[in-house]
Amino acid sequence: MKEVTLAYETWGELDSSGENAVLVVHALTGDSHCAGGCCETYKRGGWWDAMVGPGRAIDTDEHFIVCSNVLGGCSGSTGPASTDPETGHPYGMRFPIVTIRDMVRAQKRLLDDLGVRKLKLVIGGSIGGQQALEWAVECPGFVEKSVPIAATGALGPQGLGMSELGRRAIMADPLWRDGDYYGEDKGPETGLAIARMAGMMTYQSARGQQERFGRNSASRPALYEEFGGRFEIESYLHYQGKDLAGRFDANSYLYLTRAMDLYDVQAGYASQEEAYGRIEAEVLFVGISSDWLFPAAEVRMAARKARKAGTQAYYKEIESLNGHDAFLKDWDQLRAVVGPFLGG
Amino acid sequence: MKEVTLAYETWGELDSSGENAVLVVHALTGDSHCAGGCCETYKRGGWWDAMVGPGRAIDTDEHFIVCSNVLGGCSGSTGPASTDPETGHPYGMRFPIVTIRDMVRAQKRLLDDLGVRKLKLVIGGSIGGQQALEWAVECPGFVEKSVPIAATGALGPQGLGMSELGRRAIMADPLWRDGDYYGEDKGPETGLAIARMAGMMTYQSARGQQERFGRNSASRPALYEEFGGRFEIESYLHYQGKDLAGRFDANSYLYLTRAMDLYDVQAGYASQEEAYGRIEAEVLFVGISSDWLFPAAEVRMAARKARKAGTQAYYKEIESLNGHDAFLKDWDQLRAVVGPFLGG
Repeated sequence: MKEVTLAYETWGELDSSGENAVLVVHALTGDSHCAGGCCETYKRGGWWDAMVGPGRAIDTDEHFIVCSNVLGGCSGSTGPASTDPETGHPYGMRFPIVTIRDMVRAQKRLLDDLGVRKLKLVIGGSIGGQQALEWAVECPGFVEKSVPIAATGALGPQGLGMSELGRRAIMADPLWRDGDYYGEDKGPETGLAIARMAGMMTYQSARGQQERFGRNSASRPALYEEFGGRFEIESYLHYQGKDLAGRFDANSYLYLTRAMDLYDVQAGYASQEEAYGRIEAEVLFVGISSDWLFPAAEVRMAARKARKAGTQAYYKEIESLNGHDAFLKDWDQLRAVVGPFLGG
Repeated sequence: MKEVTLAYETWGELDSSGENAVLVVHALTGDSHCAGGCCETYKRGGWWDAMVGPGRAIDTDEHFIVCSNVLGGCSGSTGPASTDPETGHPYGMRFPIVTIRDMVRAQKRLLDDLGVRKLKLVIGGSIGGQQALEWAVECPGFVEKSVPIAATGALGPQGLGMSELGRRAIMADPLWRDGDYYGEDKGPETGLAIARMAGMMTYQSARGQQERFGRNSASRPALYEEFGGRFEIESYLHYQGKDLAGRFDANSYLYLTRAMDLYDVQAGYASQEEAYGRIEAEVLFVGISSDWLFPAAEVRMAARKARKAGTQAYYKEIESLNGHDAFLKDWDQLRAVVGPFLGG
């Protein structure tokens, strides 16, 4: 690609050493707005306000925080919905496959451009955690500390399967039009909503769903009249599906889930050990006890492998029924884990 | 409904007492052919051949075995694809919602008609297990022993959610045509295939998938070219999806999954205890250690509740990585559990 735009926001000040920077990496359908109020025109709350701000675990008084929308996304950065300068039309499915490594390399250029000489910390959950890990592998001298949350060096088959069935739902939607739906009245919102329903299932735990939804009757009127919508869990999934379809680009969903699937920390190296052995940063792997997508046991195993390869790797576990989503919910535990690690 | 057809097969002979009958109940997409070779024109192997036959755990030399396609199904029994005698057209979505209890009541009429006076055993897995349990609750004097496998008194929210997203995929397929696709060139095969992919995810365990598929590359050429089909798990899901779409009616899939969702053993009674308290049969609940859809802990809990309500209820667990599907795979353990229970 000849040119790429990265949408980003920053909080706090980069000091003269250029070494007090923290990179926060968003999850699948997130954006660069990890904290609120960075500028007058963008006051709304951020998705990690509880973590990022003055005096918070990631302290904007002390650190220069950067958060950018990932390459392939749809919140300002170049993605399938962007205009291909060579054709003057949106890329659609002509957009190249992007990998976690591509995302990291794009972010590296952004940080270089901002004058960042070293990352004090890179941190993120899920696909953001994959990037935090890849940062440590790809740019060993540049990263001091890394916190991959709810992520491992490679997604397992259960995650791959759920991911693929979501993509199939998007691609089966006739309004998807092989990805060329931009400018049309309606895009593949239905397919995207179904993909999101599949995604939401992987973000929650069985016990968490039991406690929250059980077999309770739907409290909202059914979004789709036929058959479904009798149980609260159905109504919730419909709502989440429709909500995402209103704010996210279906092609981006295809590309970003594929990047998650394809990520394999050892890609390009002879072995996982060689990949992990490249790391110079201290890495704190954070697992979530009820995570279904990246099970805690696998996150712990990743930490163990990294340590075996000579890395200063640690493991902490968040005890929660919130499943994969706990990195967007269990603030007290997250703070208790991240604060001391960043503080040293 | 004024008239209903049940397709059924029998093996062995009903004795003069009419009390040596065993009812085998099939799973979601199964049929009446639980064992092979019942007649010259129907020689192909049955889905429970390992369990049902001369000298097997369910011995056709000793018992009169009946297996019928469920009401709402599409393998001979009346379902949404059948002609509505009042209109001369297929029912489609005008078919009434059917419940597990409806299925049991229809089977009861069939058994009455066949001269069966008492069921020595009713047995099935998954939706078949729900029916086995409901048989014991609905017809207390008629059932001597019941073996619900991989089933409980009510499906949990994780199962409900996966079920609903599958239905949404069918209903979102434009070829579904609100259920009136019969006689058209093509029906909602794509939607049904996606629903099946979601179903397959719930039939397997994480560890089982890890061992069988891992992140292995696809060994078959991709059924769908775009994006997917790189990993073996994707190729497997595509294959399973396409396979079901070629042999099963999408509307039946909607109705039968809905029956699974709606089943609640206490429906019509003041409490679960009252429902379980009706049971006169001995009930052997069989859980599968790695079951995701009906977790073993919940099956064990159902047995406990039934016992607390005064029922002779037992619990046995199949140790397997095969997940929910173990009742169609782990023959040795199934035989070891079912044989002695039926034999007394």
